[in-house]
Amino acid sequence: MEVYHNTYTLKNCKYIVNPDGEIRKNLNIVIQNGEIKHIGKEVEGEEIDCSKFVAIPGLVNAHTHSPMVVLRGYYDDAELKEWLNKIWDYEKNSLTKEQMRIGSEIAILEMLLNGTTAFVDMYFNPEQVAELSEKYKIRAYGGYTFLDQLFDPYEIDKKQRGLKKSNYFTPIVNMHSVYATSERTLVLAKQLADEIDTWIHVHMSETREELFTIKKKTGLFPVQYLAHLGMLNKRLQLVHLGWVASWEIEMIQKSGSTVTYCPSSNMKLATGGSFPLKEMSRKGINITLGTDGPASNNTLDLFKEMKVGVLLQRQMYWNVDVKAIDLLQSATINGYKLIGVKGGVIREGYKADIVLLDANLIYPLADYRMYSHLVYFVDGRYVEKVIVDGVIHNKRDIEEQLIERVKDLERLIT
Amino acid sequence: MEVYHNTYTLKNCKYIVNPDGEIRKNLNIVIQNGEIKHIGKEVEGEEIDCSKFVAIPGLVNAHTHSPMVVLRGYYDDAELKEWLNKIWDYEKNSLTKEQMRIGSEIAILEMLLNGTTAFVDMYFNPEQVAELSEKYKIRAYGGYTFLDQLFDPYEIDKKQRGLKKSNYFTPIVNMHSVYATSERTLVLAKQLADEIDTWIHVHMSETREELFTIKKKTGLFPVQYLAHLGMLNKRLQLVHLGWVASWEIEMIQKSGSTVTYCPSSNMKLATGGSFPLKEMSRKGINITLGTDGPASNNTLDLFKEMKVGVLLQRQMYWNVDVKAIDLLQSATINGYKLIGVKGGVIREGYKADIVLLDANLIYPLADYRMYSHLVYFVDGRYVEKVIVDGVIHNKRDIEEQLIERVKDLERLIT
Repeated sequence: MEVYHNTYTLKNCKYIVNPDGEIRKNLNIVIQNGEIKHIGKEVEGEEIDCSKFVAIPGLVNAHTHSPMVVLRGYYDDAELKEWLNKIWDYEKNSLTKEQMRIGSEIAILEMLLNGTTAFVDMYFNPEQVAELSEKYKIRAYGGYTFLDQLFDPYEIDKKQRGLKKSNYFTPIVNMHSVYATSERTLVLAKQLADEIDTWIHVHMSETREELFTIKKKTGLFPVQYLAHLGMLNKRLQLVHLGWVASWEIEMIQKSGSTVTYCPSSNMKLATGGSFPLKEMSRKGINITLGTDGPASNNTLDLFKEMKVGVLLQRQMYWNVDVKAIDLLQSATINGYKLIGVKGGVIREGYKADIVLLDANLIYPLADYRMYSHLVYFVDGRYVEKVIVDGVIHNKRDIEEQLIERVKDLERLIT
Repeated sequence: MEVYHNTYTLKNCKYIVNPDGEIRKNLNIVIQNGEIKHIGKEVEGEEIDCSKFVAIPGLVNAHTHSPMVVLRGYYDDAELKEWLNKIWDYEKNSLTKEQMRIGSEIAILEMLLNGTTAFVDMYFNPEQVAELSEKYKIRAYGGYTFLDQLFDPYEIDKKQRGLKKSNYFTPIVNMHSVYATSERTLVLAKQLADEIDTWIHVHMSETREELFTIKKKTGLFPVQYLAHLGMLNKRLQLVHLGWVASWEIEMIQKSGSTVTYCPSSNMKLATGGSFPLKEMSRKGINITLGTDGPASNNTLDLFKEMKVGVLLQRQMYWNVDVKAIDLLQSATINGYKLIGVKGGVIREGYKADIVLLDANLIYPLADYRMYSHLVYFVDGRYVEKVIVDGVIHNKRDIEEQLIERVKDLERLIT
């Protein structure tokens, strides 16, 4: 990691690309105290030559399970229910705290390497993630997970209250799903979120089986059920939504909840659903993007996820309504809206969360092709520097640390 | 490019992974005159330390249009018919021979960089591709393309007869499709393929509209129509097949034709179909994999294509029947079967077409997870060396050349 003085200049950026369609060229970005102070011809403080870089806003991974690096490739060929049982088995009987920590550490380094500046994590080691997010200077959002099969909800509630917000870490309430928690647990999670003033992050309507189970148990569809419990509101993040009815979309719209699209994971687990991206974006719902965990994707590269995100929509809808720029918005500005940080755009007054991509091999030939290049052609390998809150991470440094941590994991497991 | 003596040893390969499920560890590969002479503990000739590499067979890109690098991102948001008209317009009115050449050159370097050792090309500059394949030492299969809207078929026939087989280049007959060529042209293409003793490479049953058009025109389904013309046989390569009936699959099985799956392109162009991979592999049909052209994918990275290839099957069939190893087979051994070269497996007596991947960041933790890692996690960024016919290409050299050629393209276009 390379930390410059409080004020520095990304000089002469070849391109500055914003997710709202704005493309600017050959300009400087002056950064001060972690914020973008000027964009233009001014220079202040140290200078970093960016004439070979494309600057884009940092990417937000809105849904992952970072320690599952340890389970990458462990069990790939099953549908969700069988897969979850297998995974829960491993998590209950084999996974140690030490493994979780190294898993999260590798995941964080991989995410940085691929241009991720913030991530929303659901697992059982948020105290480690909190510490690691400070160590590596990446924005992290996590909490203990309500999941009745594995944990006593009162224990989770208690532990969660011990989590503190810090510079880079913010506690959130993780509720696994409506099918893996009792109603009592759901109510407990809601009270907790209200008290500690944060949002609830939940898997929702991922499979047809989930719909069937919840309808049978409660008489309601999953989204409706959450509404019934008073949980469908602005402080809710619904992840997956592969199986959602049009009137449920309307409920989500009215509630102001955020939704998260995880195309690779849904496809890999053969959930068969189709996240209604266009229908939801037309209604102004805040759509974010997640890789899901490294055991169900199995990468943490949001560039790949943006591409698969477009491809899946085109496949399921037989049209080209969803375009590259839509997914870039999901991965940037919409993600920042979810986490409540003024970022996701490279503009004066916004946070200095920026990714610098190697422009040597990004050659749109005409400016309008840039979004296409970023989503369909580029992937994390083109990331040269990642800036979070003004702190600069260099590719080579991250890579070196990653290689060391991978060796640690191999020693631990094999 | 780095060329060793006729005999050399890839010493102490961390892993040697074959697409038939065989994984071997810490062994040497002795290469002589472009062939694999020994695998084991022997050492002959120069030694290359491979203790940090995973060796896999070279990847075959069974369908692309290399010069379309120039059109990457040119027109992304249309379904096939509109897209093709737009592209044909550009090709007819704006694309120069010089642009085609640089496009193919960049495509070849990109493919090498991503572990591709052979590719099947359909475009209008095979004489340039022939020359470039010798220059860069990559196996290329190409020919002038029968496409009535753009070219006089007799002219194509004549030019094609001037193409010669060389070390790295082999002429094939490119027939755009049954909807873009007259029956007279199809018959001409068939005669040509018979005379020059090669196979016919054709886009087939890509959209529902194609089915409708051909049925209306001929009374037959596209595959049936080719059978009627006597073209459905061992020397036919059918690309796309998103819309194919079960009885057409049976016809393909009996014919011994090869099929090619291009999942990203089909999805991006919203063709809506689903290539019946499992049905065809159960019948023993030779299934290969292609990226399609850089204007409809837009990458040339077959690792990404393998992953999307699994994801699409799982999405469309709501099951996990298709697995990582199936796609690795399509991209390796099945591709080599199509091109008639003894490769696609790392075994004694086979061609030395090998990809060496950086093992620092490939950590399956247990051997059985290796196929998962290769398909779901790894992409072209992990390629360190590509060996074609015993000739070693190093990542950095390819990259340097690629950057230079991209500059040339930018000078030419902008």
